[in-house]
Amino acid sequence: MAGAWHELKLVGMWASPFVTRVKLALHLKGLSYDYVEEDLSSKSELLLSSNPVHKTVPVLIHDGRPVCESHIIVQYIDEAFPAAAGSTSLLPADPYERATALFWAAYIDDKVLKPWRRVFSARTGEERAEWMEQAVAAVDALEGVLAGSKEGGFFGGDSVGYVDVLLGGIVRWVHATAAISGDELFDAARTPLLAAWMERFGELDAAKAVFQDVDKVVDYAKMIMALFAAGSAAT
Amino acid sequence: MAGAWHELKLVGMWASPFVTRVKLALHLKGLSYDYVEEDLSSKSELLLSSNPVHKTVPVLIHDGRPVCESHIIVQYIDEAFPAAAGSTSLLPADPYERATALFWAAYIDDKVLKPWRRVFSARTGEERAEWMEQAVAAVDALEGVLAGSKEGGFFGGDSVGYVDVLLGGIVRWVHATAAISGDELFDAARTPLLAAWMERFGELDAAKAVFQDVDKVVDYAKMIMALFAAGSAAT
Repeated sequence: MAGAWHELKLVGMWASPFVTRVKLALHLKGLSYDYVEEDLSSKSELLLSSNPVHKTVPVLIHDGRPVCESHIIVQYIDEAFPAAAGSTSLLPADPYERATALFWAAYIDDKVLKPWRRVFSARTGEERAEWMEQAVAAVDALEGVLAGSKEGGFFGGDSVGYVDVLLGGIVRWVHATAAISGDELFDAARTPLLAAWMERFGELDAAKAVFQDVDKVVDYAKMIMALFAAGSAAT
Repeated sequence: MAGAWHELKLVGMWASPFVTRVKLALHLKGLSYDYVEEDLSSKSELLLSSNPVHKTVPVLIHDGRPVCESHIIVQYIDEAFPAAAGSTSLLPADPYERATALFWAAYIDDKVLKPWRRVFSARTGEERAEWMEQAVAAVDALEGVLAGSKEGGFFGGDSVGYVDVLLGGIVRWVHATAAISGDELFDAARTPLLAAWMERFGELDAAKAVFQDVDKVVDYAKMIMALFAAGSAAT
C-alpha cells in the first residue's frame, strides 16, 4: 500500500471504462488512493481546474499535480511507482516491446473503442449495427495478437500488462452489451482467445476489486442509449 | 552516426508530416538510416508486410523489426538510442514531465491535426472553413503552454523535445496552407508565441536537413485539395 509520502486522488465516474482502467492499474500496483465520484451533468471545480483542456474523467491527482487521459495515467502510474509493493511493471523495459504495447494500446482506442462507443450513442438501430460491425471487425486483429502469444496468458505475457489494463477497462461493458442486445464484442465462436482472455482477466483480484456491477452497467447503458435514440443527449 | 551494429530503414513518403517527424527524430539523435520512398497509390510488399494493420507510412525498420505510428516511432527512437552521439533525450526522464509531454502530443494529434487534415480533404469551401476554424481554436491551448514556458524556448524546455518534434513535422504544411489560402494555423497576431516557435524550429539543423521544399508541398496540397473537391479521392 502507498506510504505516507504521497497522496493519490482519483476523480472518476463509476460507469466509465476509462476510469476503470486507472482503478485496475492502481490496484495492480498495490496503491491506495482517495476516490472522488464526479457528477458529469454538473462538473465540479476540482475536475474543471485539474483537467481544463478536456474536462473529462479520469484525472489522477498525485501530490496535488493532475494527470489526465486514461492511457497516459496508466503509464504514469507504472513509471512513478516502479517498485510499488508486490507489483510488476505494466509496460516492458525493452524499447521494442514497449513500442509494440503502445501500438496495440493506440489501436484499441482508435479502432475498437471509437466505433464501439458509438454503439451506445447511435440514434437508430441501423446506425448501432454499423458501429458494432466496425468494432467487431477491428477486434479480429487483437485475436491475432493473442494467437501469437503463450496460451492461457495475457497481452503482457505471463502476467497482466499495459494492453490488458486498457482493454480490461471495458470488460463489464462487453458483458452489458451482450445482456442488452446479444451482441458479443468478444465472441466464444468468432474470437475464442479473446473470450477466454476476458474470463481470465475477470478472475484477477484487481478485476474483482474494481469491476462495476454488471446489472448497474446494463441499466446505465440502457438509459444512455434511450437518451441518444430520443435525440436528447449531446454526442 | 549509427554504428555498424544496427540497421535503420525508414519507409516514408516525402510530403507526409508524420514521416517528417521521424526524420527529425533520427536527425536529432544523429542516426543514419536508409530511406525508402513509398508510392502510396501502389503500396509495396515491404510496406504491407511491415505495417499490415494500418498499411501507412511511416514505418521504421530496426534490424528487421518494424515500428509503426509516428508518435510511437519517435518515442522508440528516443528509448532505443538513449546515448546516440551528441543527442539529448526527447522525452524527459521524470514521470510527471513525461506524462505532460505525452498529454500534449495526444492533444496535437487528436484536437489539432484531425480537423486540420480535413482542411485538405474537404469537398467544399464551407467545409474547409469549418475544419480550419476547429484546428485554429485547438491551437490556442498550445499557445498557452508556450506562455507558461521559458521565453525563446521549446515545448521541451531549453532544447527540442518530443512535443516539438511531433508539431515540427507539420511546419512546411503550415507554410503551404498560408501560401495557398492565407490561412495561418500559427498566426503572428493571434498566436505570437507559436509563430515565433515555428521560426525558431525552422532554424534548427535538423529542420533544415529534413524539411520539405515548401513550393513542392504547395503543389502537392493543391493537387490533393482539387482531387477531394472533385470527389475523386477516397477519404
